[in-house]
Order: sequence, then C-alpha cells, then structure tokens
Amino acid sequence: MVDKNHYGRPWYPTIGTIIIPDENILPLTVNQTTLKNGYSYPNNAIEPYLMRKLENIPFEELTIGTKASLTRTLTEEDLLLFAKVSGDTNPVHLDEEFAATTQFEGRIAHGMWTASIISCALATKLPGPGGIYLGQELKFMRPVKVGDTVTVELEILEINEQRKRATVSTNVVNQHGKAVVKGKAEIMPSSGKVVVDEYPLPEVVLKPAD
Amino acid sequence: MVDKNHYGRPWYPTIGTIIIPDENILPLTVNQTTLKNGYSYPNNAIEPYLMRKLENIPFEELTIGTKASLTRTLTEEDLLLFAKVSGDTNPVHLDEEFAATTQFEGRIAHGMWTASIISCALATKLPGPGGIYLGQELKFMRPVKVGDTVTVELEILEINEQRKRATVSTNVVNQHGKAVVKGKAEIMPSSGKVVVDEYPLPEVVLKPAD
Repeated sequence: MVDKNHYGRPWYPTIGTIIIPDENILPLTVNQTTLKNGYSYPNNAIEPYLMRKLENIPFEELTIGTKASLTRTLTEEDLLLFAKVSGDTNPVHLDEEFAATTQFEGRIAHGMWTASIISCALATKLPGPGGIYLGQELKFMRPVKVGDTVTVELEILEINEQRKRATVSTNVVNQHGKAVVKGKAEIMPSSGKVVVDEYPLPEVVLKPAD
Repeated sequence: MVDKNHYGRPWYPTIGTIIIPDENILPLTVNQTTLKNGYSYPNNAIEPYLMRKLENIPFEELTIGTKASLTRTLTEEDLLLFAKVSGDTNPVHLDEEFAATTQFEGRIAHGMWTASIISCALATKLPGPGGIYLGQELKFMRPVKVGDTVTVELEILEINEQRKRATVSTNVVNQHGKAVVKGKAEIMPSSGKVVVDEYPLPEVVLKPAD
C-alpha cells in the first residue's frame, strides 16, 4: 500500500494522482501553481493534466444512434467518498456486518454513485462540454459492489431539431453484462465545437488502518 | 483557516469532523478503533458518531402525505469532492473563468450532487434504513452554486399495498424557494422497525492554497 512520491516521502493510497506535500514537510512556496478556485498544486504534478482536453460533439453532428461509453471500477475509496459527499451514512453502504444480513449479502454502492458516472459520461463524452443537463430517469436494477466494473452506454435515441434537445439512452451494465441501471437523459448539447482544458481534480486522502 | 487539533498540530480545513493524525507524526497505535471496512479513527473522535442512530418509517406506518426534509449548504469542498468521485472534470463546475463565459455566469454544482442529497434524505429519513431505492426521475430546473442552501422535500404520493412500494415526490428548492430539481422516486420501504447505528464517515482532506 505504501509507495514513495517524488519527494521521497511515503504516501498513502489516494483516489487521484496528484499528491500535495504536507506543508509541515515542504512549504508550498516552491514551484507551485495556484488555481482559480484557490487550490494549489506543484507544477510538475499539474502539467500532465493541463495537456488534456475535453471536446464536445456539437448538436449539428449528433445523429440518432451516436454512441459513447465510459467504464469505471468501484473502489473502496469511491464508496467511502460518495458516503462522505452525499452524507448518506446508511450502514447498507458502510457496515459489512449489517449489510451481510440484508438481501444484498454485503455492502453495496449508493445508487447515485452509478448515476454520477452517467453524469460524467454525458459531461465529458456525449455531448461533452457546453451541453446542459435537463433531466435523468433512473431505474436501479442490480446492486454494485466494491470491485465491480460498470460501463455506462450512451446512445442518442431522439433529436428535437426545433428545441435543440436530445434524448440519450443511459444504460449501465456490470462486468457480467447484467443491467445495473436503466434509464435515459434529456440534454441540450452546445451548437458548434467546444474544446476546453480538462480541469485538474483536487488531492483527496483517506486514511486507512495499518 | 489553520486550527489546532487535539494533538496540538495544525490541521487543514476538512469536510468532516474526524481528524486522523499523519502517521509520520503520530503512530496510529494509541487509543484507536479499527472499523470493519479497515479504516481506523481515534476513539475520542469516533465515540460521538457511534451514539447516533438511524431509524426508518416502516411501510405499515406510511400514509399518503407523509413528509420529511433535509437541508444542505453546498461548500467549495463538496463541489470539488463531487468532481473527484464522479470524475466529471467539466470546467463549468471547476473553472471560474470559463464558467463565467457560460449562461450560468459562474461555476455550478454537478446536478447529481443535488440528486445525491435526495438519495441521502431517502436513505436516512423517509423511509430510512432497510428501504430499497428502485428508481428516480430528475428534472434539473436551476443551477446550484457554492454557498447555496438546498432543501430536499420528500412527500409520499402513492402507496402500492400489494407490491409494498411507494412513490415519493422529491422536489428540491434553494434558499430563495425556487425549484432546483423536480422529480419523484420509487422506493420499497422495509416492513417493521429498523434501527441502526449511523456509520461514521471517513476523514477526507483537501489541500487549499495558503
């Protein structure tokens, strides 16, 4: 679990890839970039991120049947972080002993974690930046557990030329090809090409037991 | 921004209330509780959490018109954490300069953050633990920005006695009483009383600029 970062210090397993040195060890006054939201990163960590671009599929280029997908494996950290950000402390997500007594026979992810991956796929792939998220229907079909790999499958179902809107199928399957979520989204894609820098994510550290 | 924790060390502003000391500074061998999921906390931090209980409203006690609500104020940390856990790096959420050029005139929360608060309200209040989340419809009506206070208003709309299911109105309003999300959920509440320990959330640290 313990690795070394580029300052030669041990680091803790983290969810992301940018490591911020503890200011008790290394003052953050050297070689740093301060972001517009007030968070700062060492330049050598941020540079690879600034190279990445997000680009949209403009409304004019969408056709019925246009597809995109996004695959993600649920980690223990994802599950804990989603509990944290949602405030959902229900033990079916967090307490293995309690969850084992339920019909799920173990801890399950929050359904909205899977929905957040759908949202990520819409915001970054189809239609991508510049689009507006108008609505989402979700049917939770099966639980997702730590270690499961989910694939969001997006496909344009309908296009409303007059209102510049589209309906997107947003089904999610697990590594066994079984439906985890079924549903669809209403979006208003941007007209014209939008290319933006993918914004770097903050460092997040969860402290595990030794 | 910098405060002292109970070990006399400066700490960073955090999203939660449990602070884990850096193991380089203080070995985690003193006075700690190891949770079933492998994360550990100092006992004096965890104890107040273990006192809290979640209890459900059993299916038999639900009537049309049963209500519950949950209020949350979106912090900068919530927004960053949601970007992290969803992977949604769209700059409309993260880059103030870019977002200022959009129709939203500034950064907005991920729509699914608001949906995650709906999910929390369902899982912890109405119907609470033991319930199963079957589906959710969401219409995103207005953006939510850092500092906005949203209130999830739950109300039982329909009860299906035969299938032991219920439809819940899940509207969300902001501090001005304006609709942020409209929608409804399908749930299968537990039969009989369920009382569980509210599970403690992990420590999460984001490193801000000085």
